[in-house]
Amino acid sequence: MSEPQAADYDNVVNLPRPGAVTQADLAIRTLGTSRIDSPMGHLLDARATTEHYVDENDRVLLDDTVAGIRARGVALEDLPGLEPCGPRRKIYFDPSKTRVGIVTCGGLCPGLNDVIAGLVRTLTYHYGVRRIVGFRNGYQGFISRYGYDEVELTPAYVRDIATEGGTVLGTSRGHQDPEEIVDCLERMHLNVLFVIGGDGSMRGAMGIERVVAERGLKIAVVGVPKTIDNDIPYIDQSFGFQTAFSRAAESIRAVTVEAKSTANGVGLVKLMGRHSGFIACYAALARSDADVVLIPEVPFALDGLLAHLRARVEQRGHAVVVVAEGAGQELMEAELRTDASGNRRLGDIGRFLRTKIEDDFAERDIETSVRYIDPSYAIRSVPANPYDSVYTVRLSQAAVHAAMSGRTAMVVGRVRRRFVHIPMPLAVSKRNQVDPNGDLWQAVLESTGQPVRF
Amino acid sequence: MSEPQAADYDNVVNLPRPGAVTQADLAIRTLGTSRIDSPMGHLLDARATTEHYVDENDRVLLDDTVAGIRARGVALEDLPGLEPCGPRRKIYFDPSKTRVGIVTCGGLCPGLNDVIAGLVRTLTYHYGVRRIVGFRNGYQGFISRYGYDEVELTPAYVRDIATEGGTVLGTSRGHQDPEEIVDCLERMHLNVLFVIGGDGSMRGAMGIERVVAERGLKIAVVGVPKTIDNDIPYIDQSFGFQTAFSRAAESIRAVTVEAKSTANGVGLVKLMGRHSGFIACYAALARSDADVVLIPEVPFALDGLLAHLRARVEQRGHAVVVVAEGAGQELMEAELRTDASGNRRLGDIGRFLRTKIEDDFAERDIETSVRYIDPSYAIRSVPANPYDSVYTVRLSQAAVHAAMSGRTAMVVGRVRRRFVHIPMPLAVSKRNQVDPNGDLWQAVLESTGQPVRF
Amino acid sequence: MSEPQAADYDNVVNLPRPGAVTQADLAIRTLGTSRIDSPMGHLLDARATTEHYVDENDRVLLDDTVAGIRARGVALEDLPGLEPCGPRRKIYFDPSKTRVGIVTCGGLCPGLNDVIAGLVRTLTYHYGVRRIVGFRNGYQGFISRYGYDEVELTPAYVRDIATEGGTVLGTSRGHQDPEEIVDCLERMHLNVLFVIGGDGSMRGAMGIERVVAERGLKIAVVGVPKTIDNDIPYIDQSFGFQTAFSRAAESIRAVTVEAKSTANGVGLVKLMGRHSGFIACYAALARSDADVVLIPEVPFALDGLLAHLRARVEQRGHAVVVVAEGAGQELMEAELRTDASGNRRLGDIGRFLRTKIEDDFAERDIETSVRYIDPSYAIRSVPANPYDSVYTVRLSQAAVHAAMSGRTAMVVGRVRRRFVHIPMPLAVSKRNQVDPNGDLWQAVLESTGQPVRF
Amino acid sequence: MSEPQAADYDNVVNLPRPGAVTQADLAIRTLGTSRIDSPMGHLLDARATTEHYVDENDRVLLDDTVAGIRARGVALEDLPGLEPCGPRRKIYFDPSKTRVGIVTCGGLCPGLNDVIAGLVRTLTYHYGVRRIVGFRNGYQGFISRYGYDEVELTPAYVRDIATEGGTVLGTSRGHQDPEEIVDCLERMHLNVLFVIGGDGSMRGAMGIERVVAERGLKIAVVGVPKTIDNDIPYIDQSFGFQTAFSRAAESIRAVTVEAKSTANGVGLVKLMGRHSGFIACYAALARSDADVVLIPEVPFALDGLLAHLRARVEQRGHAVVVVAEGAGQELMEAELRTDASGNRRLGDIGRFLRTKIEDDFAERDIETSVRYIDPSYAIRSVPANPYDSVYTVRLSQAAVHAAMSGRTAMVVGRVRRRFVHIPMPLAVSKRNQVDPNGDLWQAVLESTGQPVRF
Repeated sequence: MSEPQAADYDNVVNLPRPGAVTQADLAIRTLGTSRIDSPMGHLLDARATTEHYVDENDRVLLDDTVAGIRARGVALEDLPGLEPCGPRRKIYFDPSKTRVGIVTCGGLCPGLNDVIAGLVRTLTYHYGVRRIVGFRNGYQGFISRYGYDEVELTPAYVRDIATEGGTVLGTSRGHQDPEEIVDCLERMHLNVLFVIGGDGSMRGAMGIERVVAERGLKIAVVGVPKTIDNDIPYIDQSFGFQTAFSRAAESIRAVTVEAKSTANGVGLVKLMGRHSGFIACYAALARSDADVVLIPEVPFALDGLLAHLRARVEQRGHAVVVVAEGAGQELMEAELRTDASGNRRLGDIGRFLRTKIEDDFAERDIETSVRYIDPSYAIRSVPANPYDSVYTVRLSQAAVHAAMSGRTAMVVGRVRRRFVHIPMPLAVSKRNQVDPNGDLWQAVLESTGQPVRF
Repeated sequence: MSEPQAADYDNVVNLPRPGAVTQADLAIRTLGTSRIDSPMGHLLDARATTEHYVDENDRVLLDDTVAGIRARGVALEDLPGLEPCGPRRKIYFDPSKTRVGIVTCGGLCPGLNDVIAGLVRTLTYHYGVRRIVGFRNGYQGFISRYGYDEVELTPAYVRDIATEGGTVLGTSRGHQDPEEIVDCLERMHLNVLFVIGGDGSMRGAMGIERVVAERGLKIAVVGVPKTIDNDIPYIDQSFGFQTAFSRAAESIRAVTVEAKSTANGVGLVKLMGRHSGFIACYAALARSDADVVLIPEVPFALDGLLAHLRARVEQRGHAVVVVAEGAGQELMEAELRTDASGNRRLGDIGRFLRTKIEDDFAERDIETSVRYIDPSYAIRSVPANPYDSVYTVRLSQAAVHAAMSGRTAMVVGRVRRRFVHIPMPLAVSKRNQVDPNGDLWQAVLESTGQPVRF
Repeated sequence: MSEPQAADYDNVVNLPRPGAVTQADLAIRTLGTSRIDSPMGHLLDARATTEHYVDENDRVLLDDTVAGIRARGVALEDLPGLEPCGPRRKIYFDPSKTRVGIVTCGGLCPGLNDVIAGLVRTLTYHYGVRRIVGFRNGYQGFISRYGYDEVELTPAYVRDIATEGGTVLGTSRGHQDPEEIVDCLERMHLNVLFVIGGDGSMRGAMGIERVVAERGLKIAVVGVPKTIDNDIPYIDQSFGFQTAFSRAAESIRAVTVEAKSTANGVGLVKLMGRHSGFIACYAALARSDADVVLIPEVPFALDGLLAHLRARVEQRGHAVVVVAEGAGQELMEAELRTDASGNRRLGDIGRFLRTKIEDDFAERDIETSVRYIDPSYAIRSVPANPYDSVYTVRLSQAAVHAAMSGRTAMVVGRVRRRFVHIPMPLAVSKRNQVDPNGDLWQAVLESTGQPVRF
Repeated sequence: MSEPQAADYDNVVNLPRPGAVTQADLAIRTLGTSRIDSPMGHLLDARATTEHYVDENDRVLLDDTVAGIRARGVALEDLPGLEPCGPRRKIYFDPSKTRVGIVTCGGLCPGLNDVIAGLVRTLTYHYGVRRIVGFRNGYQGFISRYGYDEVELTPAYVRDIATEGGTVLGTSRGHQDPEEIVDCLERMHLNVLFVIGGDGSMRGAMGIERVVAERGLKIAVVGVPKTIDNDIPYIDQSFGFQTAFSRAAESIRAVTVEAKSTANGVGLVKLMGRHSGFIACYAALARSDADVVLIPEVPFALDGLLAHLRARVEQRGHAVVVVAEGAGQELMEAELRTDASGNRRLGDIGRFLRTKIEDDFAERDIETSVRYIDPSYAIRSVPANPYDSVYTVRLSQAAVHAAMSGRTAMVVGRVRRRFVHIPMPLAVSKRNQVDPNGDLWQAVLESTGQPVRF
């Protein structure tokens, strides 16, 4: 049995252990001194909407458990703290001359269009920025040989985009040459680049920012981190996550109905989560249907799982399994070693489990129907729910304030319900994962009644 | 202009200012020493679902801003901290002999049935408690002259209840004699009472607990705080709040469609929020439709509001107003003083504004249609959305762990994303409100473009 | 007891009794002989999408019951028949020169934007019409003193409009001078006018068409009948009706939850239906919650109703009443005669019943809470559901084919699942109502268990 | 080009051509003379809910087009007509002694639980039948070796079942020995058996009824036809169809979002429809996203399809294909003949098309992403929408009235919006299909702009 945890049992916020992060790691870089007075409000009406600015010296403690603080053994002033988001009294860029670019990268996630719309509205209405362009299809949009035209982004253009899922700018995966990208930024005289993307895209943004710095340019590169798996560290929850697990819960409902409607039915849903099982955990908790949740963070033995399923089917007449796509990879690899034919399909834990369950019941001559679904596209493509709409509005406002004040090489995020600035290197330094000793996983175990280990 | 705030700008978590709360205020009372080994897991399968227990000495800092901590000027050990929720290695009650009561009080709120179901499941499956009763129609259910029978609560009974809104136990408002209630608890040999209700109900629970203590009984009284207005202090967000504002956003959509479809149309929605405008703020942020949000925390002048509306109608062809029910009360009182007839209807800010807007446009001979809705019942009665389902599951698990360990006179809640125990007196000591200088209200101003003050 | 009905018991299709309608009544007027070859399909690809045209001589029998046909006593050829909708081999207008206007009139109804989008797409893609304008805010849009600009309607403009409720063109109620309207049509050289509106608007369209004919103009006036109450005669169901009653069912759910959650609770919903109780009937049948449905077509006595409600509350602990806005008007008038003050509020059957029920329970000293909602705006403003989306697409295609073939003074509709042309005078000649002896009302009685009469 | 059709262009109601069906084919069999007075209404209150009965001699014409009637060349009295549904003045079974069985068979379809609940409520509340049993897992439930217990069906049991999809009775596919089934019916002294199932199940019911007749038993066998594909002939639309295509439209939305968000993206959805493409047609019409709809009724050439998709992708940047599972089978068979390995996977038109499209783009060096989903389980398992809830209530009321009057070997259905009795042999005599010359397919062609043939 492991040691009792410090109070960081929530484990959705996977904070660094003592000593892991210092004040230096949390320092935010800027392009220079902010000397321009922030506009006092809403330009449409020429009336003030802001009278309150963030104190540039304030910080939010990264670690707020007594055990954690004590373990650091440093003076209060030296406890690592995060810079709060919000409008600054002095800004770096002159809004009337500022040119802004926006790009969305990587897989779809609910809320991308909300972020785009939020950035455009805050830039336009709050600061009066007049030139905003969207780049098409991820980092490809900066590279001339792809031949994509930019999109002129205005409040009128973004008015209704958030009612649709996906991204109006299009997206793509993969790396593009940062030199070429900065060539494009220079050619277009951009001052600010917003990158909405996952950890790969943020590494890309760090490359862009490096070239920007090498060339001595004054271009702020600010990220809005996107991950449907909720695996960005430090951050409470990534945008789109609530929408995603809500939709995923609907898929659990579907296989449960199917499983219940046949003799000894087994429902099986594969959900997103290559390294982190948050969607699987939350979706399962959102309903009381799941008998078993399998996540990458908690290895399992196949025999134990199958025995448990047979027992559940006997008790309840059916059983429901929720599996994160990254779970059980080691099982498939083991099988692979003994399988000379090298079947590539084995990488799919959903199909793997379906076959194993079917075979297991067949061997024992128990009638069953395994109903398997993989709702990945259906989940990724929905529009943001109201919670994520609010969250993305606030994130995009925070990102604009940060960029206008000349901050760069950073992302915005919410840590323990406060919007803060996080340096890009820190944001990609590791993955947020479900703590097998934490209270989220404990809640799943209590809810499903599955054993601690199979 | 006010002083720059400390980093407690999030203002959804309305934390006490330095000195306001001491370690003593956060101490949780218990019925006695916990000596019984906690059951190691899930009784259905006789397999362990728990191997991790909360460290009884751990605490979560109440205040985690550098500015806040510094202002207290105390040693680290003396910084006030909250007790974390979770299963304890030693518990106070012997599950096989424990008798539990559950009651729901006050107005409806999404998630009540989820909490009931969660309590019953955790008590039954995790601890093996075999006798759980629900009392009917709030505190009336304990009073014999009302003649309500108790409901036997079992996992089978609660299986599907969370698909419906409301509460299967029924509810009522108002006070009942705590002596009579404790008579009932004694008569039924109950060991634990869970009260799901608002601040009035928690005051009632404190009265019950006082009588329990006076009589030297060993009955744990544990609360799950309910408030659709999200006005409980310290707590991140109350359960049902996200469901409520999501549904409220749909009402904003409805009046926006109505307003847009007529010449110079004005849409007006009155939302819950007697003292706190959280639902109005979040629902407005969830859509980009609202032109004005009015909340109790920010007074406004009628003339300024009407002028702004006329301007918006002229600019955009229509306008949409979201008003919390507690907003503008001082305006109606002022009017009341000059109104000899003492019209009681004036207390309704929605109808008041409708009339004022109609009169204002009529005076200026501008054609308009004011479409007013008050969707209060529609909002209160919906089932919890997936997020609130997860939240209530975790809250109810936390409440059961607390009660089984003998804690009493406390509520469970989530503070900065950690589930903690909060003493009842602290939980009813004040109201959570939108900070007019905080970043939530700032986000609303940026989103609506309304001026800082009318 | 009434005579057994002929098989026209469905009573949603309220067909004329024998002799009421002759073949002459069903004749559709045209502007002249169609001599132009219909375009063979989809212009975008210059590929044929049509190879099948409607036989200009075919008809659908208006009355298809043996009893009905026999009663007419005419030869088969003389049985009245309706002209089928669909593309014609020869059309009247040359698409490349055709100019089209669209207007929406009267109250909101789900599907208005779908009809607009459908008309624009079929005109553009199928026929290649290049000039389509939308008039703003109903018939006001034709009158210059209102000063509204027309909207240029293109496939790009209408691409996403159906995701929103309401009408992008705006609407208004009331009459405008047909001479002025035709002046406008002439001035703009329009050839076709599509009017989407209720019976008042169709009377307006008939006035326009009369002036068109008097002036010897060749302008086709074609209607798409809109009525959320489903009270257009002959037609199966009007567009938006299914969406409307589906949303109304959600309101019944809300008050049922409220009623169940309090002691002796009574839920009360007022639904649309001035003269026809279809929404009330269908919404009540869509759930098994309603104890009583009250519609304009079936008078009731207040005492009987109240006694029934008391009995239900005693049996089930709560009761739910669904009332159409036009029900019980005679009761309120009776009360009015004895009320010298002439309270105008009495016209609202919802508030009237709420007061009566509250008084009735109070008189008998029975605790109750009456929860009353009037969800009218919420129902009207939702976007069309998938069924109504399909229905409006097909209706708008039918309307375009009719207009392009030179038909005028007619509306499109679906009669016994076939899309047909109906002369405007016939379409406004009477109201469709729920038949108190028919099987829809019978289904309601069986479902609620309410007595045949109170 | 085919001959112009008679007015039966709606093609959702696929009526028999002249001469195909005679009056004899439409005759409904009964167990004997109905001599018992029908109960006058609702037994709960002992108040009448019925005063109107169906005229036993009335009929609804099967064919109501002038062209169709004329072609028959028979006297009016001899035109084939359907018997209307509804309560009869005289019934055959004494309700107090009637024992009823219910079984659900075949694949899931939205509304199964609604039908079960409706049957139970009408039997109990309207007729006062006191013994109703549900058989588990389709026809297996009658066979003792499967060992399933029957379920006692009461209004309390069915109260909330319609909020869940699937069937509380469970289901199975396949044939069971009718002799054994009738043994079970005899052993349990059942008088009525309701079979809810597809055409296979109705053939099974015909077998049961044959054995019942051979043994001289008086057991009414009444069907409620279920087919998510909407392929039952004569009937307007089968229950669950609207719910199914509405949910299917959501899947089209999902792949459209995916396709739009990537460069040259192609979205591909496979929908139900082995022999009939109704779901594909309606779902595509419910949105304006689909570029191509492929159905079993309209063969296509692969090269033409691929060329069209490439053109669309070039024009619009993306393309969306909706394919019914039964479409293009002949293409796969052709391929199969040349494929020695006999890959069974080829039967899946979705995967087949995905590969073909990917290969086609790859050959031409065009970047693309094909996003393919098969939402079959998600569609089948949803609860009925409000329309289907109403429809199933009315169908189940009709089925109960038919059975209580002693009718047998028949199903209930809605033909041109009238609820009628249809003999089982007629209901399984053929399949309803989309008419490639009819107006539904025409509407699809106009909406997608796809050519008449590839």
